[in-house]
Amino acid sequence: MIKPGELLAAINTPEDLRKLDREKLLQVCQELRQFIIDTVSVHGGHFAASLGVVELSVALHYVFNTPTDQLVWDVGHQAYGHKILTGRRDDFHTNRVYGGLSGFPKRSESEYDTFGVGHSSTSISAALGMAMASHYKKDFDKQHIAVIGDGSMTAGMAFEALNHAGVADSNVLIILNDNCMAIDPNVGALKDYLVDITTSKTYNRLRNKTWKMLVKLKQMGINVKDFATQLENGVKGTVLKQSNLFESLNIRYFGPVDGHDIDHLVNILEDLKHIKGPKLLHCVTVKGKGYGPAEKDQVKWHSPGIFDKITGEIKKKTFDQPQPPRYQDVFGNTLVELAEKNEKIWGITPAMPSGSSLNIMMKVMPERAIDVGIAEQHAVTLSAGLATQGLKPFCNIYSSFMQRAYDQVVHDVALQNLPVVFCLDRAGIAGADGPTHHGAFDIAYMRCIPNMVVAAPMNEEELRNMMFTASTYNGPYCIRYPRGNGVMPNWRTPLVLQEVGKGRLVSEGEDIAILTIGTVGNFAQEAIKNIKIDGFTPAHYDMRYAKPLDEPLLHKIFKKFSRIITVEDGCLQGGFGSAITEFMVDNNYQAHIKRLGIPDEFIEHGEPSELYRDCHYDAKAIELTIKEISSSLVKTI
Amino acid sequence: MIKPGELLAAINTPEDLRKLDREKLLQVCQELRQFIIDTVSVHGGHFAASLGVVELSVALHYVFNTPTDQLVWDVGHQAYGHKILTGRRDDFHTNRVYGGLSGFPKRSESEYDTFGVGHSSTSISAALGMAMASHYKKDFDKQHIAVIGDGSMTAGMAFEALNHAGVADSNVLIILNDNCMAIDPNVGALKDYLVDITTSKTYNRLRNKTWKMLVKLKQMGINVKDFATQLENGVKGTVLKQSNLFESLNIRYFGPVDGHDIDHLVNILEDLKHIKGPKLLHCVTVKGKGYGPAEKDQVKWHSPGIFDKITGEIKKKTFDQPQPPRYQDVFGNTLVELAEKNEKIWGITPAMPSGSSLNIMMKVMPERAIDVGIAEQHAVTLSAGLATQGLKPFCNIYSSFMQRAYDQVVHDVALQNLPVVFCLDRAGIAGADGPTHHGAFDIAYMRCIPNMVVAAPMNEEELRNMMFTASTYNGPYCIRYPRGNGVMPNWRTPLVLQEVGKGRLVSEGEDIAILTIGTVGNFAQEAIKNIKIDGFTPAHYDMRYAKPLDEPLLHKIFKKFSRIITVEDGCLQGGFGSAITEFMVDNNYQAHIKRLGIPDEFIEHGEPSELYRDCHYDAKAIELTIKEISSSLVKTI
Repeated sequence: MIKPGELLAAINTPEDLRKLDREKLLQVCQELRQFIIDTVSVHGGHFAASLGVVELSVALHYVFNTPTDQLVWDVGHQAYGHKILTGRRDDFHTNRVYGGLSGFPKRSESEYDTFGVGHSSTSISAALGMAMASHYKKDFDKQHIAVIGDGSMTAGMAFEALNHAGVADSNVLIILNDNCMAIDPNVGALKDYLVDITTSKTYNRLRNKTWKMLVKLKQMGINVKDFATQLENGVKGTVLKQSNLFESLNIRYFGPVDGHDIDHLVNILEDLKHIKGPKLLHCVTVKGKGYGPAEKDQVKWHSPGIFDKITGEIKKKTFDQPQPPRYQDVFGNTLVELAEKNEKIWGITPAMPSGSSLNIMMKVMPERAIDVGIAEQHAVTLSAGLATQGLKPFCNIYSSFMQRAYDQVVHDVALQNLPVVFCLDRAGIAGADGPTHHGAFDIAYMRCIPNMVVAAPMNEEELRNMMFTASTYNGPYCIRYPRGNGVMPNWRTPLVLQEVGKGRLVSEGEDIAILTIGTVGNFAQEAIKNIKIDGFTPAHYDMRYAKPLDEPLLHKIFKKFSRIITVEDGCLQGGFGSAITEFMVDNNYQAHIKRLGIPDEFIEHGEPSELYRDCHYDAKAIELTIKEISSSLVKTI
Repeated sequence: MIKPGELLAAINTPEDLRKLDREKLLQVCQELRQFIIDTVSVHGGHFAASLGVVELSVALHYVFNTPTDQLVWDVGHQAYGHKILTGRRDDFHTNRVYGGLSGFPKRSESEYDTFGVGHSSTSISAALGMAMASHYKKDFDKQHIAVIGDGSMTAGMAFEALNHAGVADSNVLIILNDNCMAIDPNVGALKDYLVDITTSKTYNRLRNKTWKMLVKLKQMGINVKDFATQLENGVKGTVLKQSNLFESLNIRYFGPVDGHDIDHLVNILEDLKHIKGPKLLHCVTVKGKGYGPAEKDQVKWHSPGIFDKITGEIKKKTFDQPQPPRYQDVFGNTLVELAEKNEKIWGITPAMPSGSSLNIMMKVMPERAIDVGIAEQHAVTLSAGLATQGLKPFCNIYSSFMQRAYDQVVHDVALQNLPVVFCLDRAGIAGADGPTHHGAFDIAYMRCIPNMVVAAPMNEEELRNMMFTASTYNGPYCIRYPRGNGVMPNWRTPLVLQEVGKGRLVSEGEDIAILTIGTVGNFAQEAIKNIKIDGFTPAHYDMRYAKPLDEPLLHKIFKKFSRIITVEDGCLQGGFGSAITEFMVDNNYQAHIKRLGIPDEFIEHGEPSELYRDCHYDAKAIELTIKEISSSLVKTI
């Protein structure tokens, strides 16, 4: 058990925090920071983001009357301090562990978690909705606070919310947590703008000075009548009002302030509590604050895993044998390999250079490997624009984040049959990040789109070949693959073109056919290996494509087999097994089909192996299913 | 055939336009405007938007070297002038007619249509992609122009694109067509801001004056050393640079200019051609310009139907008998009826008050019926925020536009099991608006989401009852219904609660069961009526819910019938029929299922009846399917 400091040990709810004298807050911050370092270094998890908002977390719960006042954290991986202060200190070591605390705020976990998050940029909309509800109920004192990073602010939905907040009669405070970072360094014009405000004389200081100077001018009795009035009117009427991006959207802007000055933060939050209407406090913070190595390399320390807190050494597992690579690295390296030979290939990522491993291409071909910031919609339609000019963009978006750009996939890419390749990383069960991050739905939501190819590789070689095939294909093509490592230590296989939509027989067998798509094919192989002991030999087909289906192969299969098992690392409703079922019915076959995959519920966090097991499609589950079917076969034959 | 004016008659391509002397352009504009009025008054279509950009359309094709230079129209219902000038004048009377021209730009229709549209706010991303491709190919003279309305500018993806454009090395010109309108009056802080710039002394004039005054101050020898330098530095360094929302995103801002002054437009576009980098020209236009009635009532004249161009009288069909209402009006009126009794009910629309008929509630309960602008993502998460506070938002979004907020539905509503009601208008075939507007995919993309209820009413009474049921249901609930009119002239039926997920037997029968969802149930009824002549009597079940399925009813059906027909006004891949098929297979039934619905392709525009026919699920198609199955039955029995 990690031991909290003396003050932190006595804070079981924010109520306890609010009883402390203000002078004690500095110590609370120190203890909270230390507790996070102590815990994450041993148990792992997101790290640098939470360190950056220690003071903010303390100040917000000190000043505001949580949970009555509604505090919404954007994305939420920075909310560890918030969790520790709101009754979850002693459970915090279970963070992100199967059955333990979620790595993100979650309504079902605590009344202090007012809005569940995981994806970015939802906080202003949610807080505005809460604020409008309070206004409607004539609860004019209730406060509604959204804490949002500068990275999250680049996503369109944050702008949509600002545009509405500026005209809605509501009590919203937006805390812009500006650390110039998403997971990777933030990009885009907004970031430059925020840096400008922060590094030049600040906006507010300028405004104050200008006013003072105008007064001085008058006091000096200088007879510049036209000038003074015109300038004053001009400055008042237009320039001042519009001299700040947020103020031009009618949101009062305050700051920038030092987000690590707890005393100042408490003062200014107290003041802001009494200013009605939409307002924004620009806090400048340092991601990783207070832990030297994390401040120096913020990307590496976003989610470092377990580390030695004294030396700052991140503990990596070591192996005697070469290990299979991560799928994302196979993507990253193969894309460079393809792009070296094909100058039409570009790489696009919305703020996930290191998460997708597109950073490999960004290093060697920066002119055609682009991070557009947290902006999935723009990433997809930008790719469509590139494709109209004969280029071949590979747009890499996590499966669950691709939900953000669904219309752009349908309307801008598929409808125009443009050759954009979508690489959906983190497809299927994503593990410790939990339900917001599992890529459960992509097969279902992609295969209903006309023109779309939906592919999923069983291993590294297949991923490489699908990428190569996609680079030559004249239409939209998506490839889904999971988080984590593959199965081939020697993965740099020669690139071979596939016939689009062609499946393959992996192992021959009798009586039962197992049809898989993607990496679960390896579970099927394991099951078959184990089951042989009992004398069963099911056939195994790696169908490779959920769309188009390999109809000739399926005709063969349905003619030969009357018992089919489908396996997918994705939702059962409308997924791959559903497509196989549609084929069977459309073609008047009558087989028994058992579909394995993610059931119709949101899957909690945990190790992938634990979740595959719970969802009943790991090797063991496939083995059991084969046995069940086989025993019924024995009975009926 | 509508006769074009003398100059317009000779313009077969923009090349012809560019040969004309500048003095002739005024006349071209007059003739183009008249041609649009003459054609739309007789053939119908979008109207006011195209009138508003007559001068812009002429100026852009006159100044820029289209189609080499890439011109992207946002949304595209304003592109009639563009179509007429680019070789489609003589076909323009086929606009929006089955087999004729599309009502929107479309790549397959013309090389001048560089990017297909229909949904809003994609143009900057697309043009930026094109511009980056040109830059990569070292084609530095090529121009890339996005024409986007102030309404479209409120959508998040436009902001995402601006944020990227400001830092991308590319040659993009954004024309902000500011007419203060979407289909309904534009809303939000950005609109207020644009009005401010336009109605106060203009930004540029102020900037010029400020500079002149500073010079004058110095010339006067006034010894205000501190003041002058500090103010100058301040104005230069911060205020001026940041005194405009677009400039703060590093996009050079020009304007506002009068978008109907053809001469000035040509001048300024010529100038802008030579300014590299991202830039924005703010054009103020009047929607409906040049046609009095349309200028006066811009909402009504957005898409007025056929009208008398002299009197301005819009021609409405008259009927002797009372007609069934539009589904949207049943929604709009029923929502008010429910909200009068339940103060928790709110209505949310993203920029579709008149299209959804939420304007009925906005008139009588403005404090809880909200238009958030073109901002589907925000609309959904705002609704989620409202729901966390115990309110019951009805969020009305067209089915195809709901694709814009898919992640918000999954991540903010369904995952938290929040009681938000989604009313998906224009579900299924949408008619003349074509493939961008057909709501083909919603059953597939909604039913894969855990916790989600997916309902579709067969008629007005069912819609009312589903809305009533949804208002009492404690979780996400979506109701899809089509564009156009219902079937019940007396539609104000008493409100009756449904059991969620419960289907109903519409008519008893033998041998074959027809399972429908939604308004296609009426096609089934018609088919059954006709088929009886031949002695067949299939049963008909209105399943009402694609999710949850009525499993007890389905068990009965599959026990009794071995031949099933499913019918839906939605995609076959993963849709309602697919859900029925999954049920059958999961429960080990072995029936023959024939699924009718939208096939796996994008459906072009036309009358709904033409498209139902082509997609083979109208009454006739159902009848044929019954006959086919019946004849096979005769053979096999």
